[in-house]
Amino acid sequence: MEVAAPPSGGVVERAVLEDLAAASRILADQGVFDAAGHVSMRHPRHAERFLMSRALAPALVTADDIIELTLECEVCDARGRHAFMERFLHGAIYRARADVMAVAHGHPPSVIPFGLVPTPMRATYHNAAFLAEGVPVFDIRDRFGATDVVINSAARGAALAEALGGKPVVLLRAHGVVVVGPSLQAAVFRAVFTEVSARVQLQAAVLGGPIAALDEEEGRRADAINLATLGRSWELWKRRVTS
Amino acid sequence: MEVAAPPSGGVVERAVLEDLAAASRILADQGVFDAAGHVSMRHPRHAERFLMSRALAPALVTADDIIELTLECEVCDARGRHAFMERFLHGAIYRARADVMAVAHGHPPSVIPFGLVPTPMRATYHNAAFLAEGVPVFDIRDRFGATDVVINSAARGAALAEALGGKPVVLLRAHGVVVVGPSLQAAVFRAVFTEVSARVQLQAAVLGGPIAALDEEEGRRADAINLATLGRSWELWKRRVTS
Amino acid sequence: MEVAAPPSGGVVERAVLEDLAAASRILADQGVFDAAGHVSMRHPRHAERFLMSRALAPALVTADDIIELTLECEVCDARGRHAFMERFLHGAIYRARADVMAVAHGHPPSVIPFGLVPTPMRATYHNAAFLAEGVPVFDIRDRFGATDVVINSAARGAALAEALGGKPVVLLRAHGVVVVGPSLQAAVFRAVFTEVSARVQLQAAVLGGPIAALDEEEGRRADAINLATLGRSWELWKRRVTS
Amino acid sequence: MEVAAPPSGGVVERAVLEDLAAASRILADQGVFDAAGHVSMRHPRHAERFLMSRALAPALVTADDIIELTLECEVCDARGRHAFMERFLHGAIYRARADVMAVAHGHPPSVIPFGLVPTPMRATYHNAAFLAEGVPVFDIRDRFGATDVVINSAARGAALAEALGGKPVVLLRAHGVVVVGPSLQAAVFRAVFTEVSARVQLQAAVLGGPIAALDEEEGRRADAINLATLGRSWELWKRRVTS
Repeated sequence: MEVAAPPSGGVVERAVLEDLAAASRILADQGVFDAAGHVSMRHPRHAERFLMSRALAPALVTADDIIELTLECEVCDARGRHAFMERFLHGAIYRARADVMAVAHGHPPSVIPFGLVPTPMRATYHNAAFLAEGVPVFDIRDRFGATDVVINSAARGAALAEALGGKPVVLLRAHGVVVVGPSLQAAVFRAVFTEVSARVQLQAAVLGGPIAALDEEEGRRADAINLATLGRSWELWKRRVTS
Repeated sequence: MEVAAPPSGGVVERAVLEDLAAASRILADQGVFDAAGHVSMRHPRHAERFLMSRALAPALVTADDIIELTLECEVCDARGRHAFMERFLHGAIYRARADVMAVAHGHPPSVIPFGLVPTPMRATYHNAAFLAEGVPVFDIRDRFGATDVVINSAARGAALAEALGGKPVVLLRAHGVVVVGPSLQAAVFRAVFTEVSARVQLQAAVLGGPIAALDEEEGRRADAINLATLGRSWELWKRRVTS
Repeated sequence: MEVAAPPSGGVVERAVLEDLAAASRILADQGVFDAAGHVSMRHPRHAERFLMSRALAPALVTADDIIELTLECEVCDARGRHAFMERFLHGAIYRARADVMAVAHGHPPSVIPFGLVPTPMRATYHNAAFLAEGVPVFDIRDRFGATDVVINSAARGAALAEALGGKPVVLLRAHGVVVVGPSLQAAVFRAVFTEVSARVQLQAAVLGGPIAALDEEEGRRADAINLATLGRSWELWKRRVTS
Repeated sequence: MEVAAPPSGGVVERAVLEDLAAASRILADQGVFDAAGHVSMRHPRHAERFLMSRALAPALVTADDIIELTLECEVCDARGRHAFMERFLHGAIYRARADVMAVAHGHPPSVIPFGLVPTPMRATYHNAAFLAEGVPVFDIRDRFGATDVVINSAARGAALAEALGGKPVVLLRAHGVVVVGPSLQAAVFRAVFTEVSARVQLQAAVLGGPIAALDEEEGRRADAINLATLGRSWELWKRRVTS
């Protein structure tokens, strides 16, 4: 018996799909994604749907690879395309966080250490201001015991979304990182500077001593500036991945 | 007196040779190999033969550079081509491990440290799940005293294979690393993520404190997922080295 | 009511504008700038004016993006182009330092740590000789409390210029670095080797023990050599960013 | 009064000049040289002459940039070309070491730390076997007091050559490294793997504990293998810098 696909949230402008595909290639180009990693955005006109590439290396994603899903992670328009196992990570966050318009998930080697050891991530400079709110760590063992650590079910997605809480970033122990934002561009910017800030903090740790990172109030103020000016980074990064 | 070459295990499809050559270029492109390093695979239709490039910088290998060897490391089809001195490393492992279908050997700078100091390698994240079984270190001095550390004889190859045991990875003190897998793609995937995981662990060591790496059960489960999905990485990597 | 723009300091030769644009692209190419960062120079024939690109990713700057400003940071020739918020950093330094002919500001990940921890930057080798004078750290909190850390006002610029004093480099806590020089080429050279020297010092810190950096007298002597020979670096770097 | 140039040691084959120019570009391409650095070789048919590029960024050197010098560092064939100030470093070593056929000098950021701190360089793996003899550090202050640290005189060159002694590598405190070899290819190979081994040792230091580097006897044996097989690396590296 064939089950009918859920209805679409409506046609999405080509430019939006192209931006989402570019976001995927940008995050590969900037070293946040490797052969894996995925970025999604909420449907521009239907809050109960989101858009995400089919299961594909992020450097290769084009607008035609974008599929539409419900927040329960059912695919609206498969047309032979296969969704990522970890789509549940995205769906769960869109359900829990009405303010979130985009979600990125990757495994950058400089960020993973902060999910493995007790040292918390800090906001080492203004571009990473959003980290000043604090970065929680999600350890899948706490609720699910020994697993393959993949966020491939609604239950795992919900647990992760709970760990994220109201923050912009959550680390996944022995796995990777999830970054969210109020726009696609903001999520990409934050994913890039989560990675850079991790490298800065690792180097500060080499030197030793207390780290005079941004405090919460400084972080709030600097983040407002970033959100207003990040279009400059976006344009540069997009140009690099658009032939 | 000319000695007859051993008989071939049979003609190998061109696509297989091209994949093996691509594997060599992929490992150079991904930073696992430098101007040295070699990857081999068992003959698809004859378990007593294996395939490996002639002695050549791995970035330059093409299908025409692949030669066929017996498990005793005699060349079946030299045609003027010279085999690597370290072919004995490959032959010995194929003899000792019927489950192994491919072997890669290189000297990535981030992995060598783990063969020099007491710290064991850990499975820092799901892509490196196979490391959760534990990574032995082979010190050639233990059996052979002061040497040039090259695995250029059957005896040295056998000792290395013994150190590897049933594991997927063995470190060679002051030399490099050997990675094996149940398929060519799996060996390449593991070689790449052995290198990445080494970098992650080095950075976690900078931060200090206990490292919440994958435990053995998590590693087994995550490795199963990797083996099922690694085609995505392979396709991306192959595209990068195929004009 | 429209306010008249301040008068220009005079026409600037095209080759000068092209060098300034190249300096911007060089600092991006050499890893000192990322999607942000800006470099300026004093007007060649009018000490009360300086030249700087409009607000734009530094890798994209061309001669047509250069605008002219007064030392109070009013734009002489906007023609629809928008200046960087942080132009006040440049203007304040030109006002305070008659010897300064160029200013560069960026956020290189290897330099930021030295603004976060107590370890002072050292002149690790002859190319970084100018650091032997000592590198002050500007903490915006000391005078302005919790801010967005951006140098976007005359008052903040003046405080930064005061922290810089007579030195060639000042670190901005949780933000970045400012480098000045007696010529555009010198400022670029110093910005590049501030970044390289930071990496050298981070690595020396890994090894531990006292660091036998250049002392003040050695620094003075080596800097004189650098200033006489840096054209060689400039030509190479410029060639890389000029098609 | 014009002084006659010293006589040439004889015409050098074009292929030799092209190899020397390639060596310069290789060391830039492999990250041993930046915008500075120089490599020389003894004249193939006259032991009292050596060949070296004019003062030029090493990435740009071609056969036409090679000049001939006496061991006292007088230029035989200037033709308007200017020699490097630091040619004295090369001349002094050729005078002191009849076995040396090539000399390379650069400032790789990963090697400089070992000239700044008490930790000696070790031979971390077979490619760096030549380091097992021990790596002395030359501190110019010991004999010359506060200087610009440049090796720009016969006296400084001689002191450096004395510090080098019979070894293949000497570190220059707060400056860089000099590597010598029995052939141009050997000096290039050693310069590359001095840099790589430094990175390996820095990472081993992060992990902590004793480092099981190659001992002297292992180093001697492994170096013999390297000298016999380094043509493979040379061919790959040369191909990368030859259009």
